[in-house]
Amino acid sequence: MDEAVKEANLSLKEGGIPIGAVLVYENKIIGRGHNRRVQNNSAILHAEMDALENAGRLTSDVYKNCELYTTLSPCIMCSGAVLLYKIKKVVIGENKTFLGAEDLLIKNGVAVEVLNDERCVKMMKEFIENNPKLWNEDIGE
Amino acid sequence: MDEAVKEANLSLKEGGIPIGAVLVYENKIIGRGHNRRVQNNSAILHAEMDALENAGRLTSDVYKNCELYTTLSPCIMCSGAVLLYKIKKVVIGENKTFLGAEDLLIKNGVAVEVLNDERCVKMMKEFIENNPKLWNEDIGE
Repeated sequence: MDEAVKEANLSLKEGGIPIGAVLVYENKIIGRGHNRRVQNNSAILHAEMDALENAGRLTSDVYKNCELYTTLSPCIMCSGAVLLYKIKKVVIGENKTFLGAEDLLIKNGVAVEVLNDERCVKMMKEFIENNPKLWNEDIGE
Repeated sequence: MDEAVKEANLSLKEGGIPIGAVLVYENKIIGRGHNRRVQNNSAILHAEMDALENAGRLTSDVYKNCELYTTLSPCIMCSGAVLLYKIKKVVIGENKTFLGAEDLLIKNGVAVEVLNDERCVKMMKEFIENNPKLWNEDIGE
Protein backbone atom coordinates (compact mmCIF):
# COMPACT_ATOMS: atom_id res chain seq x y z
CA MET A 1 0.00 0.00 0.00
CA ASP A 2 2.96 2.32 0.57
CA GLU A 3 3.73 2.10 -3.15
CA ALA A 4 0.10 2.78 -4.13
CA VAL A 5 0.15 5.84 -1.84
CA LYS A 6 3.36 6.99 -3.58
CA GLU A 7 1.52 6.77 -6.92
CA ALA A 8 -1.39 8.78 -5.50
CA ASN A 9 1.01 11.47 -4.26
CA LEU A 10 2.72 11.52 -7.65
CA SER A 11 -0.64 12.14 -9.33
CA LEU A 12 -1.37 14.99 -6.91
CA LYS A 13 2.00 16.58 -7.75
CA GLU A 14 1.12 16.31 -11.45
CA GLY A 15 -2.11 18.22 -10.78
CA GLY A 16 -4.23 15.07 -10.95
CA ILE A 17 -6.61 13.07 -8.81
CA PRO A 18 -4.70 11.40 -5.93
CA ILE A 19 -5.50 7.74 -6.42
CA GLY A 20 -2.77 5.15 -6.93
CA ALA A 21 -2.61 1.43 -7.54
CA VAL A 22 -0.07 -1.35 -7.92
CA LEU A 23 -0.44 -4.88 -9.28
CA VAL A 24 1.52 -7.49 -7.36
CA TYR A 25 2.53 -10.97 -8.51
CA GLU A 26 4.57 -13.30 -6.32
CA ASN A 27 5.39 -10.43 -3.97
CA LYS A 28 6.73 -8.24 -6.76
CA ILE A 29 5.15 -5.14 -8.26
CA ILE A 30 4.57 -5.85 -11.95
CA GLY A 31 2.45 -2.81 -12.75
CA ARG A 32 1.90 0.57 -11.13
CA GLY A 33 -0.22 3.54 -12.01
CA HIS A 34 -2.35 6.45 -10.97
CA ASN A 35 -5.45 8.28 -12.06
CA ARG A 36 -4.78 10.13 -15.34
CA ARG A 37 -8.05 11.97 -15.92
CA VAL A 38 -6.36 15.36 -15.73
CA GLN A 39 -2.88 14.44 -16.96
CA ASN A 40 -3.99 12.50 -20.08
CA ASN A 41 -7.51 13.90 -20.40
CA SER A 42 -8.53 10.29 -19.92
CA ALA A 43 -12.01 8.94 -19.29
CA ILE A 44 -10.84 5.42 -18.54
CA LEU A 45 -7.45 5.66 -16.83
CA HIS A 46 -8.46 5.29 -13.24
CA ALA A 47 -5.49 4.24 -11.09
CA GLU A 48 -6.37 0.56 -11.25
CA MET A 49 -6.78 0.62 -15.05
CA ASP A 50 -3.48 2.47 -15.42
CA ALA A 51 -1.69 -0.14 -13.29
CA LEU A 52 -3.23 -2.97 -15.34
CA GLU A 53 -2.28 -1.24 -18.59
CA ASN A 54 1.27 -0.62 -17.41
CA ALA A 55 1.63 -4.27 -16.39
CA GLY A 56 1.17 -5.16 -20.07
CA ARG A 57 -0.50 -8.18 -21.59
CA LEU A 58 -0.46 -11.07 -19.12
CA THR A 59 -1.79 -14.60 -19.19
CA SER A 60 -4.64 -15.79 -16.99
CA ASP A 61 -2.18 -17.88 -14.96
CA VAL A 62 -0.51 -14.67 -13.84
CA TYR A 63 -3.65 -12.58 -13.29
CA LYS A 64 -5.34 -15.19 -11.15
CA ASN A 65 -2.42 -15.09 -8.75
CA CYS A 66 -2.19 -11.31 -8.60
CA GLU A 67 -3.19 -8.88 -5.91
CA LEU A 68 -4.27 -5.36 -6.76
CA TYR A 69 -3.52 -2.65 -4.21
CA THR A 70 -5.49 0.55 -4.64
CA THR A 71 -5.72 3.60 -2.39
CA LEU A 72 -9.50 3.90 -2.93
CA SER A 73 -12.42 1.50 -3.17
CA PRO A 74 -12.59 0.50 -6.86
CA CYS A 75 -15.51 1.77 -8.98
CA ILE A 76 -17.65 -0.59 -11.06
CA MET A 77 -15.39 -0.18 -14.14
CA CYS A 78 -12.22 -1.10 -12.26
CA SER A 79 -14.01 -3.86 -10.36
CA GLY A 80 -15.16 -5.17 -13.74
CA ALA A 81 -11.55 -5.26 -14.93
CA VAL A 82 -10.61 -7.24 -11.79
CA LEU A 83 -13.39 -9.72 -12.56
CA LEU A 84 -12.49 -9.96 -16.26
CA TYR A 85 -8.97 -11.01 -15.37
CA LYS A 86 -9.95 -13.02 -12.27
CA ILE A 87 -7.49 -11.20 -10.03
CA LYS A 88 -7.62 -13.07 -6.75
CA LYS A 89 -7.39 -10.28 -4.19
CA VAL A 90 -7.94 -6.53 -3.92
CA VAL A 91 -6.44 -4.58 -1.03
CA ILE A 92 -8.20 -1.23 -0.60
CA GLY A 93 -6.66 1.79 1.11
CA GLU A 94 -10.00 3.20 2.16
CA ASN A 95 -13.72 3.14 1.39
CA LYS A 96 -14.84 6.00 3.63
CA THR A 97 -14.84 8.76 1.00
CA PHE A 98 -16.14 6.53 -1.82
CA LEU A 99 -17.59 3.04 -1.79
CA GLY A 100 -17.10 1.26 -5.10
CA ALA A 101 -18.31 -2.14 -6.24
CA GLU A 102 -16.78 -4.17 -3.40
CA ASP A 103 -19.98 -6.20 -3.09
CA LEU A 104 -19.71 -7.35 -6.70
CA LEU A 105 -16.09 -8.41 -6.13
CA ILE A 106 -16.94 -10.36 -2.99
CA LYS A 107 -20.01 -11.96 -4.59
CA ASN A 108 -17.75 -13.23 -7.37
CA GLY A 109 -15.16 -14.75 -5.06
CA VAL A 110 -12.52 -12.01 -5.01
CA ALA A 111 -10.84 -11.57 -1.63
CA VAL A 112 -11.30 -7.97 -0.50
CA GLU A 113 -9.37 -6.35 2.33
CA VAL A 114 -10.11 -2.79 3.42
CA LEU A 115 -7.37 -1.08 5.43
CA ASN A 116 -8.99 2.31 6.00
CA ASP A 117 -5.49 3.77 6.00
CA GLU A 118 -5.63 7.31 7.39
CA ARG A 119 -3.19 8.60 4.75
CA CYS A 120 -5.60 7.53 2.01
CA VAL A 121 -8.68 8.93 3.75
CA LYS A 122 -7.01 12.31 4.40
CA MET A 123 -5.73 12.64 0.85
CA MET A 124 -9.11 11.93 -0.78
CA LYS A 125 -11.12 13.93 1.77
CA GLU A 126 -9.08 17.05 1.09
CA PHE A 127 -9.10 16.51 -2.64
CA ILE A 128 -12.88 16.02 -2.85
CA GLU A 129 -13.51 19.09 -0.67
CA ASN A 130 -11.30 21.24 -2.91
CA ASN A 131 -12.32 19.73 -6.28
CA PRO A 132 -15.91 18.54 -6.09
CA LYS A 133 -16.66 19.02 -9.80
CA LEU A 134 -13.60 17.12 -11.00
CA TRP A 135 -14.25 14.36 -8.50
CA ASN A 136 -17.86 13.98 -9.60
CA GLU A 137 -16.71 13.75 -13.20
CA ASP A 138 -14.35 10.92 -12.26
CA ILE A 139 -17.11 8.85 -10.69
CA GLY A 140 -19.71 9.62 -13.37
CA GLU A 141 -21.84 11.90 -11.18
CA MET B 1 -23.89 -0.57 -36.06
CA ASP B 2 -22.48 -0.14 -39.59
CA GLU B 3 -19.88 2.24 -38.14
CA ALA B 4 -18.99 -0.18 -35.34
CA VAL B 5 -18.54 -2.94 -37.94
CA LYS B 6 -16.25 -0.59 -39.90
CA GLU B 7 -14.12 -0.19 -36.76
CA ALA B 8 -14.00 -3.98 -36.31
CA ASN B 9 -12.88 -4.42 -39.91
CA LEU B 10 -10.24 -1.72 -39.44
CA SER B 11 -8.88 -3.62 -36.43
CA LEU B 12 -8.74 -6.83 -38.45
CA LYS B 13 -6.78 -5.04 -41.19
CA GLU B 14 -4.35 -3.79 -38.55
CA GLY B 15 -3.79 -7.39 -37.41
CA GLY B 16 -5.97 -6.99 -34.35
CA ILE B 17 -9.09 -8.46 -32.80
CA PRO B 18 -12.16 -7.52 -34.88
CA ILE B 19 -14.37 -5.77 -32.38
CA GLY B 20 -15.54 -2.21 -32.90
CA ALA B 21 -17.65 0.30 -30.99
CA VAL B 22 -19.09 3.78 -31.36
CA LEU B 23 -20.53 6.15 -28.76
CA VAL B 24 -23.56 8.09 -29.98
CA TYR B 25 -25.03 11.28 -28.51
CA GLU B 26 -28.04 12.99 -30.03
CA ASN B 27 -27.72 10.84 -33.15
CA LYS B 28 -24.10 11.81 -33.71
CA ILE B 29 -21.01 9.65 -33.23
CA ILE B 30 -18.88 11.36 -30.57
CA GLY B 31 -16.38 8.54 -30.03
CA ARG B 32 -15.28 5.52 -32.02
CA GLY B 33 -12.78 2.78 -31.40
CA HIS B 34 -11.71 -0.80 -31.75
CA ASN B 35 -9.90 -3.45 -29.77
CA ARG B 36 -6.22 -2.54 -29.43
CA ARG B 37 -4.78 -5.56 -27.60
CA VAL B 38 -2.49 -6.41 -30.49
CA GLN B 39 -1.94 -2.93 -31.96
CA ASN B 40 -1.09 -1.15 -28.66
CA ASN B 41 -0.17 -4.20 -26.59
CA SER B 42 -3.07 -3.08 -24.44
CA ALA B 43 -4.72 -5.00 -21.61
CA ILE B 44 -7.59 -2.52 -21.23
CA LEU B 45 -8.40 -1.14 -24.68
CA HIS B 46 -11.34 -3.28 -25.62
CA ALA B 47 -13.38 -1.62 -28.39
CA GLU B 48 -15.86 -0.08 -25.97
CA MET B 49 -13.09 1.35 -23.75
CA ASP B 50 -11.30 2.73 -26.80
CA ALA B 51 -14.49 4.45 -27.99
CA LEU B 52 -15.06 5.95 -24.53
CA GLU B 53 -11.45 7.12 -24.35
CA ASN B 54 -11.59 8.64 -27.82
CA ALA B 55 -14.80 10.48 -26.92
CA GLY B 56 -12.79 12.36 -24.30
CA ARG B 57 -13.89 13.63 -20.90
CA LEU B 58 -17.64 14.17 -20.87
CA THR B 59 -20.11 15.28 -18.24
CA SER B 60 -22.73 13.00 -16.76
CA ASP B 61 -25.45 14.93 -18.62
CA VAL B 62 -23.93 13.74 -21.88
CA TYR B 63 -23.15 10.17 -20.85
CA LYS B 64 -26.61 9.49 -19.52
CA ASN B 65 -28.07 10.34 -22.92
CA CYS B 66 -25.58 8.28 -24.89
CA GLU B 67 -25.93 4.98 -26.67
CA LEU B 68 -22.99 2.64 -27.07
CA TYR B 69 -22.93 0.45 -30.16
CA THR B 70 -20.58 -2.50 -29.98
CA THR B 71 -20.15 -5.42 -32.37
CA LEU B 72 -19.84 -7.94 -29.50
CA SER B 73 -21.55 -8.46 -26.15
CA PRO B 74 -19.56 -6.31 -23.67
CA CYS B 75 -17.41 -8.05 -21.07
CA ILE B 76 -17.67 -7.23 -17.37
CA MET B 77 -14.98 -4.50 -17.61
CA CYS B 78 -16.72 -2.67 -20.46
CA SER B 79 -20.12 -3.20 -18.86
CA GLY B 80 -18.66 -1.70 -15.68
CA ALA B 81 -17.59 1.36 -17.66
CA VAL B 82 -21.13 1.69 -19.04
CA LEU B 83 -22.50 1.54 -15.48
CA LEU B 84 -19.90 3.98 -14.13
CA TYR B 85 -20.99 6.58 -16.66
CA LYS B 86 -24.68 5.62 -16.60
CA ILE B 87 -24.88 5.25 -20.37
CA LYS B 88 -28.55 4.71 -21.10
CA LYS B 89 -28.47 2.12 -23.86
CA VAL B 90 -26.15 -0.50 -25.32
CA VAL B 91 -26.78 -1.92 -28.79
CA ILE B 92 -24.95 -5.21 -29.27
CA GLY B 93 -23.99 -6.66 -32.65
CA GLU B 94 -24.05 -10.22 -31.41
CA ASN B 95 -23.83 -12.39 -28.30
CA LYS B 96 -23.59 -15.79 -29.94
CA THR B 97 -19.80 -16.15 -29.88
CA PHE B 98 -19.37 -14.48 -26.46
CA LEU B 99 -21.89 -13.51 -23.81
CA GLY B 100 -20.67 -10.65 -21.65
CA ALA B 101 -22.27 -9.01 -18.63
CA GLU B 102 -25.59 -8.12 -20.27
CA ASP B 103 -27.46 -9.31 -17.17
CA LEU B 104 -25.61 -6.82 -14.99
CA LEU B 105 -26.45 -4.01 -17.41
CA ILE B 106 -30.15 -4.94 -17.51
CA LYS B 107 -30.31 -5.39 -13.73
CA ASN B 108 -28.98 -1.84 -13.36
CA GLY B 109 -31.49 -0.28 -15.71
CA VAL B 110 -29.46 -0.04 -18.93
CA ALA B 111 -31.48 -0.69 -22.08
CA VAL B 112 -29.87 -3.56 -23.97
CA GLU B 113 -30.66 -4.45 -27.56
CA VAL B 114 -29.08 -7.48 -29.23
CA LEU B 115 -29.14 -7.50 -33.02
CA ASN B 116 -27.37 -10.79 -33.71
CA ASP B 117 -26.10 -9.23 -36.91
CA GLU B 118 -24.70 -11.97 -39.14
CA ARG B 119 -21.70 -9.82 -40.17
CA CYS B 120 -20.62 -9.60 -36.52
CA VAL B 121 -21.18 -13.31 -35.82
CA LYS B 122 -19.22 -14.37 -38.91
CA MET B 123 -16.30 -12.05 -38.18
CA MET B 124 -15.88 -13.22 -34.57
CA LYS B 125 -16.51 -16.89 -35.32
CA GLU B 126 -13.75 -16.95 -37.92
CA PHE B 127 -11.39 -14.94 -35.73
CA ILE B 128 -11.88 -17.15 -32.66
CA GLU B 129 -11.40 -20.33 -34.73
CA ASN B 130 -8.15 -19.01 -36.16
CA ASN B 131 -6.81 -17.29 -33.02
CA PRO B 132 -8.05 -19.17 -29.95
CA LYS B 133 -5.09 -18.24 -27.74
CA LEU B 134 -5.27 -14.53 -28.47
CA TRP B 135 -9.02 -14.55 -28.01
CA ASN B 136 -8.77 -16.29 -24.65
CA GLU B 137 -6.23 -13.72 -23.54
CA ASP B 138 -8.65 -10.93 -24.43
CA ILE B 139 -11.42 -12.38 -22.27
CA GLY B 140 -9.17 -13.37 -19.38
CA GLU B 141 -9.36 -17.13 -20.01
